[in-house]
Amino acid sequence: MADSATRRRRGGGRAGAAARRGAAVIEQMPWNPPINIDRPTEPLDQEGVEAIHDGAMRILEEIGVAFYNEEALGILREAGCTIEGENVRMGRDFVMEMVGKAPSRFTITPRNPERTIEIGGKTMLFGNVSSPPNYWDLEIGKKVPGNREMCRNLLKLTQYFNCIHFAGGYPVEPVDIHASIRHLDVLYDKLTLTDKAMHAYSLGKERVEDVMEMVRIAGGLSREEFEASPRMYTNINSTSPLKHDHPMIDGCLRLARRGQAIVVTPFTLAGAMAPVTMAGAVAQSLAEALCAIALFQYVRPGIPCVIGTFTSNVDMKSGAPAFGTPEYMRSTQMTGQMARFYGLPMRSSGVCAANVPDGQAMWETSNSLWAAVQSGTNMVYHAAGWLEGGLIASPEKFIMDCELLQQIQRYMQPEISATGPDEIALDAIRAVGNDGHFFGIEHTQKRYSTAFYQPFLSDWKNYEGWEAAGGIWTAERAHHMFKEIIGSFEAPPMDDAVREELAEFVERRKSEGGAPTDF
Amino acid sequence: MADSATRRRRGGGRAGAAARRGAAVIEQMPWNPPINIDRPTEPLDQEGVEAIHDGAMRILEEIGVAFYNEEALGILREAGCTIEGENVRMGRDFVMEMVGKAPSRFTITPRNPERTIEIGGKTMLFGNVSSPPNYWDLEIGKKVPGNREMCRNLLKLTQYFNCIHFAGGYPVEPVDIHASIRHLDVLYDKLTLTDKAMHAYSLGKERVEDVMEMVRIAGGLSREEFEASPRMYTNINSTSPLKHDHPMIDGCLRLARRGQAIVVTPFTLAGAMAPVTMAGAVAQSLAEALCAIALFQYVRPGIPCVIGTFTSNVDMKSGAPAFGTPEYMRSTQMTGQMARFYGLPMRSSGVCAANVPDGQAMWETSNSLWAAVQSGTNMVYHAAGWLEGGLIASPEKFIMDCELLQQIQRYMQPEISATGPDEIALDAIRAVGNDGHFFGIEHTQKRYSTAFYQPFLSDWKNYEGWEAAGGIWTAERAHHMFKEIIGSFEAPPMDDAVREELAEFVERRKSEGGAPTDF
Repeated sequence: MADSATRRRRGGGRAGAAARRGAAVIEQMPWNPPINIDRPTEPLDQEGVEAIHDGAMRILEEIGVAFYNEEALGILREAGCTIEGENVRMGRDFVMEMVGKAPSRFTITPRNPERTIEIGGKTMLFGNVSSPPNYWDLEIGKKVPGNREMCRNLLKLTQYFNCIHFAGGYPVEPVDIHASIRHLDVLYDKLTLTDKAMHAYSLGKERVEDVMEMVRIAGGLSREEFEASPRMYTNINSTSPLKHDHPMIDGCLRLARRGQAIVVTPFTLAGAMAPVTMAGAVAQSLAEALCAIALFQYVRPGIPCVIGTFTSNVDMKSGAPAFGTPEYMRSTQMTGQMARFYGLPMRSSGVCAANVPDGQAMWETSNSLWAAVQSGTNMVYHAAGWLEGGLIASPEKFIMDCELLQQIQRYMQPEISATGPDEIALDAIRAVGNDGHFFGIEHTQKRYSTAFYQPFLSDWKNYEGWEAAGGIWTAERAHHMFKEIIGSFEAPPMDDAVREELAEFVERRKSEGGAPTDF
Repeated sequence: MADSATRRRRGGGRAGAAARRGAAVIEQMPWNPPINIDRPTEPLDQEGVEAIHDGAMRILEEIGVAFYNEEALGILREAGCTIEGENVRMGRDFVMEMVGKAPSRFTITPRNPERTIEIGGKTMLFGNVSSPPNYWDLEIGKKVPGNREMCRNLLKLTQYFNCIHFAGGYPVEPVDIHASIRHLDVLYDKLTLTDKAMHAYSLGKERVEDVMEMVRIAGGLSREEFEASPRMYTNINSTSPLKHDHPMIDGCLRLARRGQAIVVTPFTLAGAMAPVTMAGAVAQSLAEALCAIALFQYVRPGIPCVIGTFTSNVDMKSGAPAFGTPEYMRSTQMTGQMARFYGLPMRSSGVCAANVPDGQAMWETSNSLWAAVQSGTNMVYHAAGWLEGGLIASPEKFIMDCELLQQIQRYMQPEISATGPDEIALDAIRAVGNDGHFFGIEHTQKRYSTAFYQPFLSDWKNYEGWEAAGGIWTAERAHHMFKEIIGSFEAPPMDDAVREELAEFVERRKSEGGAPTDF
């Protein structure tokens, strides 16, 4: 105990030093998850909230959700739900009672306790892009399958940027690692390259158990310490419409029983896997999420659960998914209202349909990130690095997105809108009068260096200055920055003993064959 | 009278037909200015509103604003203000009494009455970029001085896009036309290439009077008809800190006396022409605007006035102006609160510091456009086509911005968030159940073609489809679209007699030497 506490303190101290050294490439804002001070944008009136709630409840009461998981069916039968084959129907009293047991806020403490995140309330947390099978960067210039080096580089960005608060799923799938052992290698990379809160894919019991064990080892924790409070989380998607698959539920039950956090994110694409009307898609999404959360609360009352939304729409012409659309924004806002109605923390995403990090990528991503703000989202998944509807991860896009995330962090600082006498600055205005300017006066000089957001990627030079500096467009500037950050990256400190224990665990589990790959 | 009414009806009908023909290049949303259904984002509490108001009033009472305009000084002396040299101080009672006379909403009726705009309330109106001296497009590939052809092309875009509701200032300065006659040629182009509400620069009495006369002729209006209600507007900037120059005030007084609308937009760059603190910059901006509005209301009670904001911040490193920053967003929101406090319609802008239409351009512009939404802005200046802090106009940026403007238009349609039984769609969800999908069902088929926003520029194809189509980044797609729109552009109809009268007016005024160019 004393040992691990010491280790933590030293780790934190050295992490701070590494962050300061890393700051040589860019000047970035400090780690400080934004508190969302804006009143949420609420497209629904009270009647609308009630209508969507009633819709979600009637879906659960009258239509039911399929659970392709025998254990879950047994538990839900015991809980009094109506089971027919895999279809489960449950009454709203049961759902609301169970959902009421979930905490409205909780913490996840990663191996570096300085990176502890609080999920819920008005806190906004940003995570890296997760799970694209493909990778694109300006140097390669085309879409290619992800590999371990790409994954490691994106993990370095995840660690480097203070505005990234949690390490979500794999930032790109390293398909050069066999699926049976991929989770071992990537978790080793994640746990050694980052010290932020992380995630296990619910893809079979071996993977989930391995990842929990590795997070425990990396944290220098006993089993009891690990289980005493959340150290990690999983995120599952339902298989819309109205299905939960075996491994997802299995993984969640395993995490729930060990006190870890669960995010349930249905992917209800309006017009495809959900009604073409956004309220219907939202109601279905809520039903799919709430029945799973009810199950987890029944198994382990009070286990931290987050309700996720991934409701968007398809392209009317092709049926392809679209992201960051007006309909996406409104459904995210509606889900925010409903999450507050249920008292659950909420997850949404930073998303786009664009294939390269250009103008479209940024307006779609801006739309989705501002929707996250407007909806009161707590966890913003895929907040940096996502392209092509989640099929591509890009380091340039990652860095461009971080500029936006930092701006949201700055936007949420209440001092921008402070209105005390020092801010109204009547004396300064009087001193300058009808002539002159504010550049040199004391009121300006005292505040100048911290008064305004300072970008790291945006180029605010005039055209001539920009041209003289090479006339470089944003994506290319981001590419150069990517190379510099990777080139000078220093991993957060980890005790040698812990690193060895992790490596030994990986070796042992590899020698045992890793996880089955029956898919 | 009958003649002009007939002309209008025919004009409108033909404009509709032209719009339909023009729709061959892209499918765009119809002309339908958005109604902002969102509750504004309000960073100030009541105390903050009072503090900024008090600051603005004390600036006017204790410090004063310089009016470099003898006529204005005479009027304000008569009104009881305290004049010392050019410095004018005025009491808050006078300011508030005068400002109270301004209407909270009004209309501007251009030559095509179908393009009448209502300014105020919850209506959002978008205008083209105005006044950049330079032009950039992908084909030219560098910043060049604007010319008449570039100006005409941007006017064609202004007319073409239904999401552009008013034709602001010159979309680029045609510096190949001598300044003495530039207003005559450009207004001829504006009035013949567009039929939307337009603007006169307040740059000397000849220009203002010429433009009013040309708008009157183009509308087929008698003097009395022209003066009976707003047919156009001017926009002036104060010379911050705390100065109003002669031609700006002169132009406004001329428009006010003929019943035309006035937008007053101080340009208070925090840390340069205004305090480094945003509340101080906003208070100063309000003071500069309100004293001018008070003057115009004293001269012509009830004349439509709009309060504009152009409060942003400088780059801490270079002193260069920055746009679309977090500080810009908050000051725009604060100004929105104050505009509602004063009961005045509000103007803000779509702005960025980026030099080319890339990712940075779009996140900065997105920030500023969402700030316009959040602030309850009524007139969004520079909503399409602005680069380099307003020093460059770009057709690619214009088209990219229009995609964002259309998305805001769609975002504001309340039906997205409708929650009736048809939208909750329980029967559809029941019919699909735990298996299948929603593509083919009747509920989807009935709504499919109008359920979702349909972009004209965003490419929602997957990477392979996008690559097969040439792998074209957004700015280049916009460039091709620009060429197509210009190539097939059809001007809105205008009676030959009106066109001849306009041309004759231009010729006559040119032969008289146009306007003096003593600058």
